[in-house]
Amino acid sequence: MGKGPWLDEDEQKAWRSYLLMHRTLETHLERHLQREFGMSKSDFEILVNLSESESGRMRAFELGRATQWEKSRISHHLSRMEKRGLIRKEACDSRYPEIVITEEGLAAIKACAPAHAARVRQFFVDVLGTDRMIALGEASDEIVETIGKHCDADCPPEVRGQG
Amino acid sequence: MGKGPWLDEDEQKAWRSYLLMHRTLETHLERHLQREFGMSKSDFEILVNLSESESGRMRAFELGRATQWEKSRISHHLSRMEKRGLIRKEACDSRYPEIVITEEGLAAIKACAPAHAARVRQFFVDVLGTDRMIALGEASDEIVETIGKHCDADCPPEVRGQG
Repeated sequence: MGKGPWLDEDEQKAWRSYLLMHRTLETHLERHLQREFGMSKSDFEILVNLSESESGRMRAFELGRATQWEKSRISHHLSRMEKRGLIRKEACDSRYPEIVITEEGLAAIKACAPAHAARVRQFFVDVLGTDRMIALGEASDEIVETIGKHCDADCPPEVRGQG
Repeated sequence: MGKGPWLDEDEQKAWRSYLLMHRTLETHLERHLQREFGMSKSDFEILVNLSESESGRMRAFELGRATQWEKSRISHHLSRMEKRGLIRKEACDSRYPEIVITEEGLAAIKACAPAHAARVRQFFVDVLGTDRMIALGEASDEIVETIGKHCDADCPPEVRGQG
């Protein structure tokens, strides 16, 4: 440490390479889902969360926590997905309805998930190789833990209180 | 290779750790800029690009290329930034005006850049350490290059034709 806030040349280079990589990979995966399956990244995120939940149902606030989206974005997007038949809202004991994945939503996520996984394999897993991939996973966990320690309230809920 | 499309447990774990890390880091940096400087991530991206360009001026399509935003998002966001005095549009030879960073825009980016760099240092550079940081930069370049080779047309413009 003991350096000023500015990044030196190597640090700047690594940081920018990382940002460009994330943007390139994300854009590629999104365009692929959109082009081949007519599915947006937002649809995909919601459907993955619902399909992996124990009962295929979650509350909107739980989906908000899982995706880190603002309340209004969650609510608008769920309404659009409901109109397209991918999810439905079901009244339950609480005053908040449950969001349930429909047969159609389940079919949609099952249709695109293998192709999506194949892209992640091709451009992330296979390029990195096992050792670098595991190292990146571990480094990622350290970064999340460090952010969690320093700015608890400012962190995604799943990270809070790890410090 | 020779595996199916599905990710095995280690692969899944590394991929999810990576995604959570990116989301956590991005959210943290965004919230910090917003809270301390009233600046959105979108403002920051535009101002960084303009302030680093040779003349402090770019065309909207160049900013679109640099940020990978849709045309309409660029256009709306530039209008909002113009109203706030951070940029101005200047007619020039071409039929497309140039986007110019104002004194106020320059002051805004200068005010927040050191604090932003300090966060990047704290949660990226210092957590990784030099060796892992350089390795991640190199791995990132490989991923970008591989995507560029396989899906030229589908790639961010700065990545196209690298293959």
